[in-house]
Amino acid sequence: MKAVTVGIDIGGTSTKFGVVDREGNVLTQGSISSKTHDDSFDAFFDDMSAAIRQALSEIGPAHLLGIGVGAANGNYYHGTIEHAINLPWKGIIPLADMVKKEFDVPCIVTNDANAAAVGEMVFGAAKGMKDFIVITLGTGLGSGIVCNGHLVNGKHGIAGEVGHTSVNPAGRYCNCGKRGCLETYVSATGIKRTVYKLLADHLEDSVLREISYESLDTKMITDAALKGDVVAKACFDYSGRILGMKLAETAVHTDPEAIFLFGGLSLAGDLIFKPTIYHMEENIMPIFKGKIKILPSGLQNQAASILGASSLVWDFLEKKSAVAN
Amino acid sequence: MKAVTVGIDIGGTSTKFGVVDREGNVLTQGSISSKTHDDSFDAFFDDMSAAIRQALSEIGPAHLLGIGVGAANGNYYHGTIEHAINLPWKGIIPLADMVKKEFDVPCIVTNDANAAAVGEMVFGAAKGMKDFIVITLGTGLGSGIVCNGHLVNGKHGIAGEVGHTSVNPAGRYCNCGKRGCLETYVSATGIKRTVYKLLADHLEDSVLREISYESLDTKMITDAALKGDVVAKACFDYSGRILGMKLAETAVHTDPEAIFLFGGLSLAGDLIFKPTIYHMEENIMPIFKGKIKILPSGLQNQAASILGASSLVWDFLEKKSAVAN
Repeated sequence: MKAVTVGIDIGGTSTKFGVVDREGNVLTQGSISSKTHDDSFDAFFDDMSAAIRQALSEIGPAHLLGIGVGAANGNYYHGTIEHAINLPWKGIIPLADMVKKEFDVPCIVTNDANAAAVGEMVFGAAKGMKDFIVITLGTGLGSGIVCNGHLVNGKHGIAGEVGHTSVNPAGRYCNCGKRGCLETYVSATGIKRTVYKLLADHLEDSVLREISYESLDTKMITDAALKGDVVAKACFDYSGRILGMKLAETAVHTDPEAIFLFGGLSLAGDLIFKPTIYHMEENIMPIFKGKIKILPSGLQNQAASILGASSLVWDFLEKKSAVAN
Repeated sequence: MKAVTVGIDIGGTSTKFGVVDREGNVLTQGSISSKTHDDSFDAFFDDMSAAIRQALSEIGPAHLLGIGVGAANGNYYHGTIEHAINLPWKGIIPLADMVKKEFDVPCIVTNDANAAAVGEMVFGAAKGMKDFIVITLGTGLGSGIVCNGHLVNGKHGIAGEVGHTSVNPAGRYCNCGKRGCLETYVSATGIKRTVYKLLADHLEDSVLREISYESLDTKMITDAALKGDVVAKACFDYSGRILGMKLAETAVHTDPEAIFLFGGLSLAGDLIFKPTIYHMEENIMPIFKGKIKILPSGLQNQAASILGASSLVWDFLEKKSAVAN
């Protein structure tokens, strides 16, 4: 009977899940709405459990080893989702306990960027690496740090907030309550803010002058830059300069073999990688020069969040087995 | 027969060593000059080996379990000292291999800040902690990061260079070749530079105006501040503000339970702790507020560097034994 795990990515609007084998094949996948009529977590949990049982029944006889969950504000130590502002449910949700009771298998919960880092190690481009960092460039900037082959969760389970290191203490307002955080400059939202700053400061013509802030997205900026739009190109240079300068600081903390960029902004390829690499190398402590690779995630364009969540279980079971043997 | 380890702290001028038991008692200690007539490492190694054998003979029957070495540019993975500009020897020195051959016991080599971090965990105020950071404030600013109960060495063995994160890319020149590194502001040398900057910028009387740059030391600045000298007090506020702002960034990487301050500048007590804590809390991402302790090292005023070096062996043996059992 084949061994499988389930990976669940709980988002604010929808929740994706899939059944995954050890080679990273997603045997079946689906999604349900995260919103029930009364925003009751119990109702959502019943929907999710039914959908997972259905998915498991579709793949034929299999041995379910565990369930991994990536969710905003997922706490690894407590197995909970805690006060997630972007999810429909208030307070502290004892998710791992509920899953264990329902399915009688181990359940590992963590935040989405941490799940992405473990996914990179188990299924992606960090296979075999012991020390690396994944930077997720979505609406915000998340990160997962792996040292000595283990995800760094920290004392309170909130490690890896590279997106909230400081670019400028008097800079852009951030959702976290501070000003000038890295994610206000480098993320899908950050680069939009940069477009508007550069359009305000400069006189150059740009196709981006035709687009409202609400309509603008990373792909439009990427397409404009690829067509030679001066402002769009300058936006990537600006973002890459700031990201490179800050990664030069992040890298000297844990001395990673590689830093992987994942998500929307990273799909712009050279437009973002070239200035990021250049400015990291320019700004890093000399003994680190030429040592830290900046690479694209190996899970791009796949069911990355399902793989990341499912990898939490594979990683957990393999480390447990390594200690036992 | 009692079990002991030897800790060795190799410095540019002198090398200290001691025989240490599991409770952190330094049973005997001594020091030799790091400089031999021809700066030959072999001659120095012979002197050191003879001195260690003499020290071991003084404590009576004992079982030597291993030798730990803290040294600038000590590389944990290779067991070497590599291109240390502040030590008398050039190139790459295969220290661990030489020690193993001479004493037939394991030898662990790392840099002095990493040794301080392991020392804090084994003998100091971080006993029982799994996630913490030690900041050593000496001529420079060193750091050792512990995550999941393990020292972070990184891919290339050079992790923990918090002293070379950036305060101002156009700021003070640093020995590392960059400008504006944290250690150019916060260290024994950094605060001297701040004294001279503030004396240049301001008009206030200060006893520090009587002292040359070469003569000035941290204790003089501390004594002046305690007597109410306005410039000296402002120097501690300036140093603490910068240290606090940068620790707010360091802390969000690995989410430590505590950050310990060790060495000269930290002995100034409230003068440096108060502004550091205040500005870390002011600048840190809100979910971390009130969670990260800033504490004095528990190894102050003791044979800290000997304890740190010897702790490398105790830590190594206990982790090896934990895996075996």
